[in-house]
Order: sequence, then C-alpha cells, then structure tokens
Amino acid sequence: MHSQEFFTPIKRELQKMEEELVRTVDTRQPLLKQASSHLIHAGGKRLRPAFVLLTGSCFTSKIDHLIPMAVAMELVHMATLVHDDVIDNSLSRRGRDTVKARFGNRMSIYSGDYMLAKALHKVSEYCRADLMKIITETSVKVCQGEIVQLQSVFDVEQGITDYLRRIERKTALLISVACQVGALLTDASPPMVRAMRRFGYYLGMSFQITDDILDYTADDSVLGKPTGSDIKQGIITLPALYALRNSPEAPELRAILSSPDNAARHAERAISIVKSSGGIEYSQNMAERYIDKAQLMLEQIPSSQARTALSRIADFICIRDY
Amino acid sequence: MHSQEFFTPIKRELQKMEEELVRTVDTRQPLLKQASSHLIHAGGKRLRPAFVLLTGSCFTSKIDHLIPMAVAMELVHMATLVHDDVIDNSLSRRGRDTVKARFGNRMSIYSGDYMLAKALHKVSEYCRADLMKIITETSVKVCQGEIVQLQSVFDVEQGITDYLRRIERKTALLISVACQVGALLTDASPPMVRAMRRFGYYLGMSFQITDDILDYTADDSVLGKPTGSDIKQGIITLPALYALRNSPEAPELRAILSSPDNAARHAERAISIVKSSGGIEYSQNMAERYIDKAQLMLEQIPSSQARTALSRIADFICIRDY
Repeated sequence: MHSQEFFTPIKRELQKMEEELVRTVDTRQPLLKQASSHLIHAGGKRLRPAFVLLTGSCFTSKIDHLIPMAVAMELVHMATLVHDDVIDNSLSRRGRDTVKARFGNRMSIYSGDYMLAKALHKVSEYCRADLMKIITETSVKVCQGEIVQLQSVFDVEQGITDYLRRIERKTALLISVACQVGALLTDASPPMVRAMRRFGYYLGMSFQITDDILDYTADDSVLGKPTGSDIKQGIITLPALYALRNSPEAPELRAILSSPDNAARHAERAISIVKSSGGIEYSQNMAERYIDKAQLMLEQIPSSQARTALSRIADFICIRDY
Repeated sequence: MHSQEFFTPIKRELQKMEEELVRTVDTRQPLLKQASSHLIHAGGKRLRPAFVLLTGSCFTSKIDHLIPMAVAMELVHMATLVHDDVIDNSLSRRGRDTVKARFGNRMSIYSGDYMLAKALHKVSEYCRADLMKIITETSVKVCQGEIVQLQSVFDVEQGITDYLRRIERKTALLISVACQVGALLTDASPPMVRAMRRFGYYLGMSFQITDDILDYTADDSVLGKPTGSDIKQGIITLPALYALRNSPEAPELRAILSSPDNAARHAERAISIVKSSGGIEYSQNMAERYIDKAQLMLEQIPSSQARTALSRIADFICIRDY
C-alpha cells in the first residue's frame, strides 16, 4: 500500500504545497539553489505537511491558508535532516546522495541554517505570536534532543525512559506540532487542538519505534539504508534495550553495543541476539499501544473524511513493511 | 580607549543583559550547557546588544523591556560564529579555543542551531509579528551571504560590489537590524526607525571594512588571530581588491591570492604588495565615508546622551588600533 492513498482528501493542497516548497527555497544564489532543490527532490513522504493539512481538514473545508504552514513544517524537518547528515557523516539517505555527499559539509551547514530561517520566516507571515512561540520552542527542544542522542551513543546503561525521551524530541514533537498548528489555524476549540496535539505525539512515538524496529527487520530496499545501521552508529533503540535486559545472551550483546569497533564488526550477531530475545515483539507491542492512544484522541473530534484518513494512517504506521 | 566607556548610559542594562544571556542558554543538558557557557564566556564586545539598548535609549528612558531583544541579537550573532568556526575549521577565536576545538564539529553544529532557536524563541515572546519577520528575513539573508562568501574564496575576478554585498550580509545587516528593532520597541516614529536602521547599516559596513583592514595591519594581540588570516583562507577583501586593480605588482598578487597553496606560502608578500599599493588608505577612506553617512543619520534624531554615545562609537569604529 502506498502512503499517498491516505492523502486523497488533501491531494490538491499537497500538490500546491509542493509547488510552494520549491518556490520558497528558490534563490538567485546558484549553489544554494542546487543544494536546496537536491534536498527537495530527494523525496520524502511529506508526512508533516500532510498532518498539517489533514488536521486542518478535520475542522474546516477551506485549508489553502494552511499551505504555508505545511511548507514551513517540511522545511524545519529538512533542516534537521541536512545537519544530521553532516553529524552522522551520511552519504546517502532514501537511496540518494545526501547534500553533504554532493556539496560538502560547508554547504550542508549553511543550507540547513537557510532552510530553518526560511521556515521561521514563513511562519512569521501568519503574524501569530502563538504559532511562532510553539515552533521556536519545538526547535529548541529538537536541538536538545539531537545532543542527547549524540551523547547516548554506545551507552548500554541507558534506560527505556531515556530512549522514549530521545525519540520524543527526535520525531514525536515535530509531528505533534504539525497536528497542533493545523488545528490552531482553524476554528477548532482548545480541547480539540489539545486532542490533535496529543494525537500527533502518540503517532510520532509509534512512528519512530516502528522505524527503529525496521532497522532490525527490513532489508535495504525498504529502508533506503543498510539494516543494522543504528547498531553500527551506536544508536541503541528499544529492541536492543529490551534484549539487554531480557536476553540470556545479554552480556555478549552488551560487549558488541558498547564499542564502535565491535558494533561495526558484529552487527549481524547483535541483530540475531535482539531478534531472538523477543525485543522486536516487545517494541511492536509498544508501538501499537501508542497507536491505540492516538486513536482515542481522534475519537474526540468530529467525524469527517479527514479524520478517517488520519485514523488509517495511524493504523498503517505501526504495521509498515515487517 | 576601551569600548565599554561608550556604554556608560546603558551600563546597568548591559549587566542585566549579560545575566539574562546566561540564563537563556541554560539547560539541564550538561554538554550543551558547557558548550554554550564556553561561548558566552569567550567574551566578545556585546556590540549588537549595546546597539539595541543605545538605540532604544535615544527614544525612551525605560529600556528594560529591550533586554530580551538585546539577548536575542547576541544569540543570533553567536550562532553564526559557531557555525562559521566549523566551516573555517577555526580552532581559536579572540585568543581562546572555539567550541569546535573544545567540543568537536557535532556539538558546534547543534549548539549553533540551539542558539538560533533560542534567539527566535526569545523574539517570539514579544508577540510582535513585525519583529519576527525582520529577524527571520535577516537570518535568511545572512545564510545566503555565508554561502556567497564560501564561493568567492580565491576568486580574484570578484569586484568591489561583490565585496560590499558580501560584508553587508556578513556584518552590516545584523547591526542594522539591532538598531532598527531597538527603535521599534519604543515610540520612535517610522522616519526615526528608518534613520536608525540606516545608521546601523552604514556603521556595520564601516565596521567590517575596518576589520578587514586590521587583518593587514594589526598584530596578533589586537586581532586575537594571526595577521593575514583572510589571505590564507582565500577571503579577498577591499585592500586586496584595490591592489589587484591598481598595484604595479598586481599580476604577482593575483597569482598568490588565487591559489590556496600560494596564499599559505606567500601571505607575507601579498600583505606587503597590498600595503604599498595604497589599498589600506583607499579602504580607510571608504570606511570613513560610511561613518559620515552614519553620522548624518544620527543628526536626524533628537539629541540625547545615548545619541552622543552612538556618535562616539561611530567615530571610534573606523580608527580602531591602526
């Protein structure tokens, strides 16, 4: 099943969003233009813009005024990706060269800064201080989360709470904000806005847990990056955290995950220990519980075609490809 | 003469600004906290905050409400410095380790992002869309300027207009905005706000030209970086551009400035060609002309202790240390 099918109610607006995205990063500066279009055309599911638009559609039929906000959300997301690629030294993402690989570190840093500035400028055009506050606050937290992630690599002592807090900042917050601002730009009542914010949060948590499971279970063609890449980078996710606590082979896993050398050499073995520990099933179960909470939030809002679409996305999020 | 003497009218507020700056970047995340305090305590003249506060003081005696904006301006400035240090591979600035040297590239990228986000969040607290727009627009332009600078290294074909446009984005814009928002946060009339914005712009241009002259004339202890560091990095500034057009030794200079290898090896020779070409005097003259324009702008605003301070800073800017 293709994710675009969920987006039928906002197909026209997503198309417009795409055009405005291209226009927004347009610049006379040739190299910056190249780097930005490279990034835009590298694809991505445009999940954050879709959430802005679908959430808005739950409360109004006219959502064209949400398009600049949808663009801004995608730009914030793209800005973090470009900087992450410098940090992770990634040469490919979704099966294509990264900006870093093609244009080097310098361009990546500045084009990330450029996109973030453009995003915030876009938001400023709404002349709404509440939106601006939410989005800058989120950016601050996302940065803090990136740094926590940097520090937690190869740290086998971290707990599940550390992990959950990390993925909250890495993924859930921005999706949550996308849903919140989508509602805030309509006449939705404060309880409805809150429900949408929490919907996005739970969905984002489930989304990231599922992504982390896929790093163990999916093959390269699905992920666009090699299986086990988290392990090799020292990123210890939920399936491994479970195994570290519950597998009879925990000491061996511990030795692999705590050293960059061992992780690079014995990633396959680590994957097999994690898989046989029940860590995948445990994580799937947690992803599903988050989705249940997300669905409960949706029940609070009026029934509509857009709500149905959001609900179907939520169901799909944690059964992706494995 | 010490720059702090100019700041007497706003001494108390600058002290408060400093405290709020420290509080603003405070975080429970230990490494980020270290990196941020390292950057804050590395000093700097706090010129942008001072311009916010002094400009405001030209129009009102109560300027405490300008302090968060002053903090934000310094944070934007610091964010660009941290990212520049990654780009330039700089290990020291103002005679101290950079964040990059002490904490590595990764922390530098994220702590720069963090400071920019914090700055914009601070501005968002004013609930004023006009301020937010001005500052995000400026951030976009500053990023574009950084990229233009990247591309112009070792390019001996660039003209004086290219140079002026580059330093506008690199330095003048942010100082200009500091003066503009300082006025905007008071009852200053639109023509007064415009005069302050242009004052800051002219002063910023003069400031950067003077900085570029100092790279040829000052010794290490004044600059906090080695003389000729621009040449070695391929940054071709006004004195060299003049020499490339007017020195009898232009062909030799051209050969040195267009190649990283030659520039590293023959920086001393390049400096001597530029110095004997009259490029320094030409640049000093241009810096002074910008200051004259800045002073003209000041004449449009009511006389006050703060205006006198701004005028003295302007006079001082282009006679620094050479």
